[in-house]
Amino acid sequence: MTYCVGMRINRGLVFMSDTRTNAGVDNFATTGKMFTWTIEGERKITIMTAGNLATTQAMISLLEERSKAVEDRDPSILRQNTMFQVARLVGATLKEVISDSSPNGQTSDDQFHASIIVGGQISGGKPTIFMIYPEGNFIEITDDTPFFQIGETKYGKPILVRAYDPEMSFEDAVKLLLVSFDSTVKSNLSVGLPFDLEIYETDTYNSDRHKRIDASDPVYQSISNGWGDALKDAFQKLPTYRI
Amino acid sequence: MTYCVGMRINRGLVFMSDTRTNAGVDNFATTGKMFTWTIEGERKITIMTAGNLATTQAMISLLEERSKAVEDRDPSILRQNTMFQVARLVGATLKEVISDSSPNGQTSDDQFHASIIVGGQISGGKPTIFMIYPEGNFIEITDDTPFFQIGETKYGKPILVRAYDPEMSFEDAVKLLLVSFDSTVKSNLSVGLPFDLEIYETDTYNSDRHKRIDASDPVYQSISNGWGDALKDAFQKLPTYRI
Repeated sequence: MTYCVGMRINRGLVFMSDTRTNAGVDNFATTGKMFTWTIEGERKITIMTAGNLATTQAMISLLEERSKAVEDRDPSILRQNTMFQVARLVGATLKEVISDSSPNGQTSDDQFHASIIVGGQISGGKPTIFMIYPEGNFIEITDDTPFFQIGETKYGKPILVRAYDPEMSFEDAVKLLLVSFDSTVKSNLSVGLPFDLEIYETDTYNSDRHKRIDASDPVYQSISNGWGDALKDAFQKLPTYRI
Repeated sequence: MTYCVGMRINRGLVFMSDTRTNAGVDNFATTGKMFTWTIEGERKITIMTAGNLATTQAMISLLEERSKAVEDRDPSILRQNTMFQVARLVGATLKEVISDSSPNGQTSDDQFHASIIVGGQISGGKPTIFMIYPEGNFIEITDDTPFFQIGETKYGKPILVRAYDPEMSFEDAVKLLLVSFDSTVKSNLSVGLPFDLEIYETDTYNSDRHKRIDASDPVYQSISNGWGDALKDAFQKLPTYRI
């Protein structure tokens, strides 16, 4: 499985992904699922992937034009004029890869399926995030739905719904994502550390705020350990149900 | 969908189930999923069901011997000597019902499938809980796994894992279940109020502690509304991730 979240707050965008891939519990590995393209001052695009690893790696390779010699590469993802065009390109590429693998064309429940979150900002537009389905179609983030999740989405959703606030700082957004990821890691063996974190501040068009957070990170450890106690305290403060 | 939890604490057993059944989002109804059998001073058995409603209703009807005239009924669930025998009987009945509906025999991913939680106490034994699979086999609760969930289990699991304590009072256990159910209701439309609650205190063999909790219940409302604020407070107390 996988767990990735792309979130929009007023200050910009925050992306987090886990790095565990597996084919059965006896065959797992660490593989990054977050990919970024940057033209300083002009665009910043982040993609996160969930699903069949062969599909998502092939899609990323096509987007990077790895089928061409290094000197001939001019990834088309860097030549789209808007984030909407980027989402269409990524959707079309994903659909093409799945179709190549599937004898009967792609479907959502296909073994070759994958889901994608793509977000960022291109000069002239606002920062935004899209979620792309295996069929190549996609939806865009709105104020009512300020985050997208892919992969193992359920365990970590309640805290996102409860604690999200568009006015929050990047520090609080990262803390919120760490709590959500920690709940997921504790419930599903196929989601695992380290986590990749990417912060994008509106109108900066740069990529210097990328970080990998591993299990030994002291702040992550204190959040992970402290959340259990904080939850118990919160729980004690609720009114008692007399029975 | 459905959400049911059966939990063992040192003082006894607590069961909670939602009451929403649906066949698509445009066709839903309120149907109890909790059934109890009591012989005062001798046994108390509670069953909760998830899955195909035709399957689970047929199973309960067979257990109650509704195929016989009222005066001839002597439900075999009331004649088993141990909770283990009860679990075997329920498993065999479930398997039989699914087999009757399925042309190719029952399997876990069958459209006629269902999962069952059965718990209680029979004089001479300890209170215990079993989870029964569509194939008729089952597992029993242990100190390491002190609760079973069936139906939409994921949203409500993290708080159960974090806040469960075998020493807790019945009041706290009910509060914990209400928080878990509230998180689930807020995330999955196919789980809905009212909730059925059953509390069984060890060695009492009676059934006077049954309650239906609906959306207008003031304590449920204050727990549901208060949990969001309590979570936010807990969240603020965690260390900040400097980035």
